[in-house]
Amino acid sequence: MAMFAVCGPDDEIIVFEPFYANYNSYAVVNGIRLVPVPTDIGNGFHLPDAKTIGQAVTSRTKAILICSPNNPTGTVYTRKEMDMLVDLAASRNLYLMSDEVYREFVYDGNAHTSLFKYMEKYPDRLIVLDSLSKRYSFCGGRVGVLVTMNRGISEGVLRIAQGRLSAGYVDQMVAAELRHIPSGYLEGVCKEYRKRRDILYRGLQKISGVEVPQPEGAFYLIAGLPVADAEDFCRWLLTDFRDNGETVMLAPAAGFYATPDLGRNQVRIAYVLDSTKLERSVSIIARALSVYGN
Amino acid sequence: MAMFAVCGPDDEIIVFEPFYANYNSYAVVNGIRLVPVPTDIGNGFHLPDAKTIGQAVTSRTKAILICSPNNPTGTVYTRKEMDMLVDLAASRNLYLMSDEVYREFVYDGNAHTSLFKYMEKYPDRLIVLDSLSKRYSFCGGRVGVLVTMNRGISEGVLRIAQGRLSAGYVDQMVAAELRHIPSGYLEGVCKEYRKRRDILYRGLQKISGVEVPQPEGAFYLIAGLPVADAEDFCRWLLTDFRDNGETVMLAPAAGFYATPDLGRNQVRIAYVLDSTKLERSVSIIARALSVYGN
Repeated sequence: MAMFAVCGPDDEIIVFEPFYANYNSYAVVNGIRLVPVPTDIGNGFHLPDAKTIGQAVTSRTKAILICSPNNPTGTVYTRKEMDMLVDLAASRNLYLMSDEVYREFVYDGNAHTSLFKYMEKYPDRLIVLDSLSKRYSFCGGRVGVLVTMNRGISEGVLRIAQGRLSAGYVDQMVAAELRHIPSGYLEGVCKEYRKRRDILYRGLQKISGVEVPQPEGAFYLIAGLPVADAEDFCRWLLTDFRDNGETVMLAPAAGFYATPDLGRNQVRIAYVLDSTKLERSVSIIARALSVYGN
Repeated sequence: MAMFAVCGPDDEIIVFEPFYANYNSYAVVNGIRLVPVPTDIGNGFHLPDAKTIGQAVTSRTKAILICSPNNPTGTVYTRKEMDMLVDLAASRNLYLMSDEVYREFVYDGNAHTSLFKYMEKYPDRLIVLDSLSKRYSFCGGRVGVLVTMNRGISEGVLRIAQGRLSAGYVDQMVAAELRHIPSGYLEGVCKEYRKRRDILYRGLQKISGVEVPQPEGAFYLIAGLPVADAEDFCRWLLTDFRDNGETVMLAPAAGFYATPDLGRNQVRIAYVLDSTKLERSVSIIARALSVYGN
């Protein structure tokens, strides 16, 4: 709905790759072209400078779409990066759309800089997208929100939403009750995810040839593996490899890139398993890499 | 999703007006033009002949979209009309999309002719659309289904659906349990709706100047009123008129027409209130019409 609101057919939206693959589906359905600006595993998938991003802007560019904390990288954009994006969007007359579904999942005391901070300064240009699915492990709940101070966008989106009549009634009732959950709940969840992240990140770091930036938020990381084709490795893990009868399922990261051949040796791992299983998973990955291709 | 699957931008879909107004929203979102073929209150909004419908087909026409039992008219297309539509679609290489959410709500022993009857004969051209919302008074449930034997359509729609990840989890669980509801439940519901229809239909027939075809299914009817502008009358009912402190809310039917000025004197009434309230509503309408404009 956000894409449809800000773009006409053949318009462009800038995204930073790797990016959440479903953005592609929404773009295709709306006849919009996603223009990927690459980020690099070497600096933890943080953003290039304003000049580099600005070079991707064309006469058809209508918006920049970001996700922080990021799926699939776990990167949390700094205050400086957010300042840069907001200024760039404002100076080039673009919308800045911020997918913040992992907003609370930030570790190491890094503050998350929400686009909400800038809304009063640029009321017409900013759109925040959010959902309950991650915050409360309410994954099958289909309740989201689009927040903007731009009245035209807001009224237009409402009209599209009304065409769908409503979000599910039961989901809305669940959503209404979630406000009674004490804020301490999320602190506990964060602590648990941080523990899992540490196990996975430290474990992967010890494996020879694996490149892994420390994830700063969400519950994903992308790791570069010492393999030529991570998709083949992921398939082999499922079809051929077993360690004491067990294996792991990893997501080939190439699917999160739009530019051909980028991320070919990378995988995305979601650290949603408990600590014991994650420890075991790391040892399976280490063992698999030592066997693969021999 | 069905519209997106069968049309490119600027393609056309034939609909019979009056039609469910949200078809417009879906068409606009997909950049599709709905081409309305008028039906007439004088013959209960049944279909014109194949030749008349065929004249609306252009090189951009991709599909005919029907709804039977119909919202907003309550019309149930006969076997002969369905034969005609299926033959027309097949001979002109069009898709025929059949919205059958009210399929069970048919009165007077009129059989409903589902598009399913024709699927094996024309496996590539037919699409049935359905939902649980009406069948089980599960209105806030957001679970629908698209049925086709056309593999390309089916796989394409699945991909769009996967972009949305899933229907709501809770709604899916509710839907799964609904299979335990005995079929007798729907007979009881139908009997009740038929009773309400009779009260409303017979009551309206007695009001001078009201034209009302007998609704054959669903739980709507459209009535022509002895007023020049039904929208003004509907507004006046809410803002100015009271009968013993009570009034009724009717839907101006013009919103269900795409052709300007059609249906200007018509209203849609949903007979979803209980019998006592419907009887009272009819008397309020009669009283209001005698006062309005004087």
